[in-house]
Amino acid sequence: MAIDHACQKVYDYIDAHFAEHVANFQELIRQKSVSPLNLGMAECAALVERRFRAAGCQKTEIIPTAIHPIVWGEIWNDAPATMLVYFMYDTQPVEDEAWTSPPFAAEIVRRPGLGRCLIGRGAINSKGPMSAFLDAVASIRAVHGRLPVNLLLLAEGEEEMGSRSLQAFVRDNADRLKRADCLFMPLSDEDDCGTAKVTLGVKGIVYFELECSGASWGRGPQAFDIHGSSKAIVDSPAWRLVRALATMTSEDGNRALVEGFYDEVRPPDARDRALLDELQLTFDPTKMMIEIGDVKEFIGGTADRRALLERYLFQPTLNIDGIWGGYIHAGGKTVLPHKVTVKMDVRLVPDMDVDETAGRVRRHLDRHGFPDIKMNRMHGYEWAKTSPDSDIARAHIDAMKSFGHPVEVWPIAPGTGPWYLFCKMPLNLSCVIGGLGHGARAHAPDEYFVIEGEGGVSGFGDCEKSYVRTIFEYAAVRARGGRAAAGR
Amino acid sequence: MAIDHACQKVYDYIDAHFAEHVANFQELIRQKSVSPLNLGMAECAALVERRFRAAGCQKTEIIPTAIHPIVWGEIWNDAPATMLVYFMYDTQPVEDEAWTSPPFAAEIVRRPGLGRCLIGRGAINSKGPMSAFLDAVASIRAVHGRLPVNLLLLAEGEEEMGSRSLQAFVRDNADRLKRADCLFMPLSDEDDCGTAKVTLGVKGIVYFELECSGASWGRGPQAFDIHGSSKAIVDSPAWRLVRALATMTSEDGNRALVEGFYDEVRPPDARDRALLDELQLTFDPTKMMIEIGDVKEFIGGTADRRALLERYLFQPTLNIDGIWGGYIHAGGKTVLPHKVTVKMDVRLVPDMDVDETAGRVRRHLDRHGFPDIKMNRMHGYEWAKTSPDSDIARAHIDAMKSFGHPVEVWPIAPGTGPWYLFCKMPLNLSCVIGGLGHGARAHAPDEYFVIEGEGGVSGFGDCEKSYVRTIFEYAAVRARGGRAAAGR
Repeated sequence: MAIDHACQKVYDYIDAHFAEHVANFQELIRQKSVSPLNLGMAECAALVERRFRAAGCQKTEIIPTAIHPIVWGEIWNDAPATMLVYFMYDTQPVEDEAWTSPPFAAEIVRRPGLGRCLIGRGAINSKGPMSAFLDAVASIRAVHGRLPVNLLLLAEGEEEMGSRSLQAFVRDNADRLKRADCLFMPLSDEDDCGTAKVTLGVKGIVYFELECSGASWGRGPQAFDIHGSSKAIVDSPAWRLVRALATMTSEDGNRALVEGFYDEVRPPDARDRALLDELQLTFDPTKMMIEIGDVKEFIGGTADRRALLERYLFQPTLNIDGIWGGYIHAGGKTVLPHKVTVKMDVRLVPDMDVDETAGRVRRHLDRHGFPDIKMNRMHGYEWAKTSPDSDIARAHIDAMKSFGHPVEVWPIAPGTGPWYLFCKMPLNLSCVIGGLGHGARAHAPDEYFVIEGEGGVSGFGDCEKSYVRTIFEYAAVRARGGRAAAGR
Repeated sequence: MAIDHACQKVYDYIDAHFAEHVANFQELIRQKSVSPLNLGMAECAALVERRFRAAGCQKTEIIPTAIHPIVWGEIWNDAPATMLVYFMYDTQPVEDEAWTSPPFAAEIVRRPGLGRCLIGRGAINSKGPMSAFLDAVASIRAVHGRLPVNLLLLAEGEEEMGSRSLQAFVRDNADRLKRADCLFMPLSDEDDCGTAKVTLGVKGIVYFELECSGASWGRGPQAFDIHGSSKAIVDSPAWRLVRALATMTSEDGNRALVEGFYDEVRPPDARDRALLDELQLTFDPTKMMIEIGDVKEFIGGTADRRALLERYLFQPTLNIDGIWGGYIHAGGKTVLPHKVTVKMDVRLVPDMDVDETAGRVRRHLDRHGFPDIKMNRMHGYEWAKTSPDSDIARAHIDAMKSFGHPVEVWPIAPGTGPWYLFCKMPLNLSCVIGGLGHGARAHAPDEYFVIEGEGGVSGFGDCEKSYVRTIFEYAAVRARGGRAAAGR
C-alpha cells in the first residue's frame, strides 16, 4: 500500500537520526519554561521558533501577548487538507519535591519494566510530544521533500496558567486559523503495555482562590498575624474558612454540596456509552494507580471498571489544590492568622458552564453566611468533545492501529485543555489528542518519557512514527473526500 | 525614707548613663537569636553571659542542653534574701511581614502618641526588659557597691520552642535553684497611658501539629501531590482534614467541641474575682485592640468589660496557628495534595493538664473516625498562679506604686511561660512578672519598646528604675520578716 511504503521510508530515516532527535528533546527540557513563575519563557519561545524553522516552516512568528508569547509557524504545500497543530511550550513549576533526577537536566536513566527514560519537567506534558512531532515533520520533508498536508503550528506558553492569551489570539486571528480543517494535539498517551490512547475531548476547569481574612470579615486580626493568646477574645479567619469549606462537600469530600453543582451534568450519550463499554475491556485500574502516582485505592473501588471509568470521565470534581495561612515553618510560633487562602478547581463535564459554575460557588458561600470570603477567579476552560466519526479521529485511530497496538478511544479526558476555543463556533474544528509513546507523572516529581522501551513499551521513535502516520492517514482520508462538510 | 534615698541615687546614675544603656539594648536586638530556626543562638548566649558579668556576676556559666544553651549567673552578697530572675534570650522568627523598620536593625523611630521607640524582633519579648534589668543591677552596684539581695540569673534560649531543656535543667539543678526565695521575671508591661501591669500567673499551652496524609490514611495520593484531574477517582487528604477540623469547634470557631475540653476548667476563685473587679475599672478594650494589632472587634463585644476580661484570662482556647498543603505559590498548579498539616495550640487555664488535654484531642480525632491523622506534640507548659499576698508580689506592687502610676494586678496572663517549673513542687516559688516601660506587638511585625516616652508613656529609663525599686522593696519586705515561711 502506498501509505505503508511512503511512511516506512520516513520510519527508516527516523531510526537513522534517532540520537539527534533525542538531543533535540533534551535541549527543550533543559530550557526551563515555567509559565506561572515566568522562568525562561522568552528563551523557550525562541527555541520553539527555531524548531519550527528546522521542521520546515516557511513562515514563523513570535507573537507577543499580555503574558507569554505565542509561537506560530506555517508549512504551506498547497495541499488539499490543512491540519492545525496545537502545542504548549510551558510547564508546571517544580517545588521541593523528591525528584531522583534533577528536573531540568533531561537525564536518561533506565527504569525497570519501562526501559530508558528521559526524566524532566515537561517530559510528557508536553515537550516530548512536541519535539517528536516537529522531528517527525522534519523527517517527512527530508525523505519526501514535501508534506501531503499543510500544517499550521501554534505553540502557546500559558497552558498551565489557563491559556488566557490564547483566547484573545483565537478571537483576533480568525483569518489564519480558518484555513484549518482540523486540530491535532500531539500527546503521547500509550500505556506501559503498548495500548495507545486516542482522546476525543477534555473536561473544562474553573480555577480560583478563596481568601478568608479578618480585613474583609471585619472580625479577627485585620492586617497581620497576631499573638496566639488573643484567640480567647479575637475571632479566627482560619476556623471560619474551615467551616466554609466544610459546607462545600459531603463527609468523604467526594461529592460537591454546592447548590446546583450537578444540574447541567449530562450523562454519557449512546456514543459515549459504546466507547466506555469498549474501554472497560482494556482499562487496567492497577496500572493507572501506578501512573497517577502510588495510589492504592480508587473512590468506589476497582471491581466495577465501567463505573470507575464513567466516574473518572463524566463526573465533575471540586478539588483543593493548596491551602496556606499563618505560621507554616519549623517549630511552634503561636499566632492567630489574619488570613488563610485555599486554591481550588472544579473540573467541568458536558454540559457544565465556566461562568455558571463559578457563580454557583460564589452563591453557595453567600447563602451559607460567608459573603466576606473573597473568590479570586484565576482561569477557566470550557469542556470540549469531538465525534469519533470525524476525519481527524478516523485518520488518527487508523494510524495508531497500523502499528499493531491495541487502541483505546477515550470519549473525553479527565484533564483539561483550551480546545473549546477551536471546537466551538466560529472555527468549529474537530480535535483529537494522541500519539504513541509512553510517559507519566505530569505535574508530579520524576515526570518521564520513555526513550527506548522494553517489554512492549514504545519508545520515542515510535512516537515520531505515529505522528508521521497520522499526517499521511489524514491526507488520505481527505483525499478520499472525507466526510460530508458538516462532519469535517 | 531610706529606700527612696538609696533608689534615687541609682535613678540619677541611670539617667546619666542612658545612652550607654540604650546601646546595650540595641546590641542585644542586633544579635539575632531565633530559636526555632537556630539563628544566632550560641552567639547570643555568649553576649548574654558578657552582660551577666557586666552586671556584676561573680560566677557565670553557659550550660549546654539538648538544644540551645542556658546562661547562668550569680551575684552573691550573703544577703538574707535571694531572688531568682528568669530571662529568655530567644525570639520568634520573622517572616515576610510588613515591618516598617528592619527587624534586626534596632532602629529608634518616633511614633506619634508614644515617643521614640526601638523597633525590633524581641524588643518587648523580651530583650528590652532583660537588658534593662541587667543595667539596673549594674547601676545599683556602681552606686552602692553591692546589692541588698542575692541574685540568681537564668536565661534560657528555648522559650519560643516550649522550654524543653529548662525542664531538665530545673530537675537536675535543684541545689543551685533551691537557694532562691522567689522568682521574678522582668517584663515591661505598662500600657501607653502609664498604667503598670503586674502579672501573677500564666496560662499553660499544648502545641501540636495534625498531619493528614494519604500515606497514613491508606487512601488518596500516597507519597506526593498528584495531578488534580485524578480527584474524580482519588480521595483527598485535604478535604479529610477540613472535615476533621470542622468537628473540633462550634460554628463560630470560638468554643472547642473536643470532648471533656472544659471539664477541669476552674472558675475564678474569690481572690481572682476581686482582682477582676478592680481590673475592669482601668481595663481599656480599645487600647488593647490597638496593642494586639489592629483588631476591630472582640468576641462577645466590649460593653461588658468584666466578662471580656474573664473570657480573656480564664477561658482555654483551641487555635489554628498555621495550615499548609499542596500548591501554595503564584498561579494555578492543579494538584491533589497528598498531605495537609495544621499547627494548633490549646491555652490551658487552671486546673487543666497538658497531657490530659493532649489526650482528649487525640481521642476526639479517634472517636470521630480520624485515627489516621497524626498528632505531633511539639511542646507543652502547665499553667501557674501566685498569690497577690506573697512577698515578691507585695514588693513588686509596692515598687510600681512608688512611681505614682496606676497599677493593675492581673491574676493570670493570657499568654504562657515555663513558670510551673518553679511554682510547683519541689521549688514551690512565688512568681511575679512585671516592670515599668511600654512595648507591644510581640510575635508580630514592628514589635517595639518605647525608649523615651511622650504624653505619659514611660521610657526605657523608667523600666530600669522599676527593677531597681523592686530589688530594694523585696529586700525590705524580707528584712521585715516577710510572710510566714509557708507563704514566701
